Amino acid sequence: MAFNKRTKIKDLLEKQYTGQEITVMGWVRTKRSNKNVSFIAINDGSSIKNYQIVADPNEISEDILKKATTGACLKITGTIVASQGAGQQTELSAKEITVLGEADAEKYPLQPKKHSLEFLREIAHLRIRTNTFGAVFRVRHALAFAVHKYFNDKGFFYIHTPIITASDAEGAGETFKVTTFDLKNPPLTEEGKIDFKQDFFERETNLTVSGQLEGELAAMGLGEIYTFGPTFRAENSNTTRHLAEFWMIEPEMAFYDAEDNQNLAEDFLKYVINYALENCKDDLEFLDKRAAEEENTKKADQRSEMGLLERLQFVVNNEFQRLTYTEAIDILRNSNHNKKKKFQYLVEAWGVDLQSEHERYLVEKHFKKPVILTDYPKEIKAFYMRQNDDDKTVAAMDILFPGIGEIVGGSQREERLDKLTQRMEEMDIPTEEMWWYLDTRKFGTTPHAGFGLGFERLVQFVTGMGNIRDVIAFPRTPGHAEF
Amino acid sequence: MAFNKRTKIKDLLEKQYTGQEITVMGWVRTKRSNKNVSFIAINDGSSIKNYQIVADPNEISEDILKKATTGACLKITGTIVASQGAGQQTELSAKEITVLGEADAEKYPLQPKKHSLEFLREIAHLRIRTNTFGAVFRVRHALAFAVHKYFNDKGFFYIHTPIITASDAEGAGETFKVTTFDLKNPPLTEEGKIDFKQDFFERETNLTVSGQLEGELAAMGLGEIYTFGPTFRAENSNTTRHLAEFWMIEPEMAFYDAEDNQNLAEDFLKYVINYALENCKDDLEFLDKRAAEEENTKKADQRSEMGLLERLQFVVNNEFQRLTYTEAIDILRNSNHNKKKKFQYLVEAWGVDLQSEHERYLVEKHFKKPVILTDYPKEIKAFYMRQNDDDKTVAAMDILFPGIGEIVGGSQREERLDKLTQRMEEMDIPTEEMWWYLDTRKFGTTPHAGFGLGFERLVQFVTGMGNIRDVIAFPRTPGHAEF
Repeated sequence: MAFNKRTKIKDLLEKQYTGQEITVMGWVRTKRSNKNVSFIAINDGSSIKNYQIVADPNEISEDILKKATTGACLKITGTIVASQGAGQQTELSAKEITVLGEADAEKYPLQPKKHSLEFLREIAHLRIRTNTFGAVFRVRHALAFAVHKYFNDKGFFYIHTPIITASDAEGAGETFKVTTFDLKNPPLTEEGKIDFKQDFFERETNLTVSGQLEGELAAMGLGEIYTFGPTFRAENSNTTRHLAEFWMIEPEMAFYDAEDNQNLAEDFLKYVINYALENCKDDLEFLDKRAAEEENTKKADQRSEMGLLERLQFVVNNEFQRLTYTEAIDILRNSNHNKKKKFQYLVEAWGVDLQSEHERYLVEKHFKKPVILTDYPKEIKAFYMRQNDDDKTVAAMDILFPGIGEIVGGSQREERLDKLTQRMEEMDIPTEEMWWYLDTRKFGTTPHAGFGLGFERLVQFVTGMGNIRDVIAFPRTPGHAEF
Repeated sequence: MAFNKRTKIKDLLEKQYTGQEITVMGWVRTKRSNKNVSFIAINDGSSIKNYQIVADPNEISEDILKKATTGACLKITGTIVASQGAGQQTELSAKEITVLGEADAEKYPLQPKKHSLEFLREIAHLRIRTNTFGAVFRVRHALAFAVHKYFNDKGFFYIHTPIITASDAEGAGETFKVTTFDLKNPPLTEEGKIDFKQDFFERETNLTVSGQLEGELAAMGLGEIYTFGPTFRAENSNTTRHLAEFWMIEPEMAFYDAEDNQNLAEDFLKYVINYALENCKDDLEFLDKRAAEEENTKKADQRSEMGLLERLQFVVNNEFQRLTYTEAIDILRNSNHNKKKKFQYLVEAWGVDLQSEHERYLVEKHFKKPVILTDYPKEIKAFYMRQNDDDKTVAAMDILFPGIGEIVGGSQREERLDKLTQRMEEMDIPTEEMWWYLDTRKFGTTPHAGFGLGFERLVQFVTGMGNIRDVIAFPRTPGHAEF
């Protein structure tokens, strides 16, 4: 016999049910009682808004009402009636309440008061039941769906690139090793080295740092593809911006040059942010207020000029500022900030890598909008980026967002076999191991481009959450692999 | 200057362009030439269908035409005209052709002839350019999008559960270890054991075998969620049905019982298969013919009764057969197949696990449709499945598909804390390590259920590909982690 004959709270809030008998199931957020009546606020995860249950102690037994404490799970059947209270149009007049699961008030960690984000991280299995994290994960869902919808509507194909890989050619960072060896007694070769021939994949393997190279292979057959999968960095960085395990979106497109790539990235970012604005109104309004309260705890000079919703609208409605690395260096070098030595790293010579403080200066102080920085010195970029005619720069782009810094990194890819192999040799990247990558340049090569978007950075930007650990359900960071 | 001013072949086939000047880019599939004209079939990955380019040697130089060999990448500008040939409505009369990338006919592995799937697996980076694999990966994309669309439309939230995990409580199989240790010199404790406190996560970690447990945590706050991510098995099984790395879809729903779960799974499978039927007509027609040709190479008694498209339509249009394990055992025990000892494993006592041959008998011989088997003996199922009142069975379900066998496994979950901990103790599952899982039963527990779908099995079923290695771009199996 099917159990799930309930109406979701989201539907109760959006549609007309007055006079109808319905069943609601969900968790108690708060309860207020007096002799004559109990008001129980129920949440079922479908909306940030609770739904009010009105229970008459003549109808519902005292024992049931006693058990309906914060965190308990209830099944309530009753009639939808117009609400007399403020804050809701309708409420549920309870005929029958079943306690599906109690929550001992002495032990349940989520009492109706403000908990710190640090504390909630320790109970990540329960924080999903709070207003803040419910909102964050609903917005995260909407953004993920928007990613798929955007690319599907444009005729891109979703490709699952490998998670376990033997190639670490990109050199994007420290990798996690993957093995089935007994770590105490790995087999050794006669020379005393680890004998990876005897490992599961008969070679050394690690977790992927990027699906780009495999994505390129697919684009050279299917035209336009994207990946959306987990990537990994074994870097010991305990910051608010880094995770050891995070999700990346990596479109790769045959027949795109650097400008096509920039156009796509800008259009894509605006689309997904706008999708969240249109589909997550209640959640974003809540997060907007939350961010405003957090801002108020900061010193005046560290506060954002815009509120969360304002900032999202601003990004959607304004063109991103595009300029070259060389132009950016000029701006930074001649800035008062540089002259007054307010940068920790002063900008002097062309060729230096930009620090986060420089990126933030460009975005937040100088242009006051998202920036697409292009044509970086080849020395500070990866081997696969297309070399410009000046012999000094490559057709790279980074997109910088206020508060977040780099949210997208991409480039036109080097499609010319001779230029690519030459650059790989200069950078000591083994061309033999990468025969399959080079094959796409040998056979039917074509201009192509792509970029990578760190999904959690995007969720941070849209939700206004300051710490990246608060936008993924069960974050992996140094020393942390709980749940 | 943007490069990508092309028209996709899919659009050329579906929309009206006759008389317009357009640009097409893509890879040469075949070329036929005589003194007066060259016909070049171009494919850009957007469709299984090629588009015909007509080149007049008076307009296009001999040198260019010579380079337009199979696999070369071309940019062609010209006018769309009505076609005189059979098989296409229109064609492109070329004004200008640029060779973006050549493909040396002596070296390019994909010549216009039939290649074996085994050979193509060795060049997985290029097989994407073939008819078969282009079709498979476009269908795979459509199925993945349908998964997201189905759940999004129903108000489910997409959750990214961890890939790296310290829990292996499910015991679903051998796991891959994840570490940053130097495998030759891992640090040891005083007792001579590996000192995992010094590893990246300060504990032993492995790659996830399932996101279910974490999915349940999320469902107990958000209501209805699903995961769609990679999972791993370090099992040394070289079969056509197993991968070391594969993608799973795992919905988990609060307030669902076993029947709700079955209803959802059946509706979901029909939806995604129907989505492919409606959105991948050309690709599925091609794969239908391909499968028919493959069937013809089999012995008469091993051939499927239905063609691929017929089978897909059949699944979409018919109710799945639901029966209990106990009923299935009766059917199998009394079958002529069993009596005549045609099963390798004869079915005698209640309680045995069903073999693939038994599942196939039920689906392909007895019911001739998809089967939902329910209420298995608790001894052969996982600890988290809800115990039935008979004290012998659990509220499990497996969905069995023709040709594929088990495509979905799921259950109502045990929501009763006492029953769950008792079962865990019986099965030697450490309850202390799983404190977070038990917390959801301590605080606001509720009936809930979920299932797992192996995505590659689904893609196999819909594309008719016999080997699971042919439905994922870069398969990972024992000894294989190329690309």
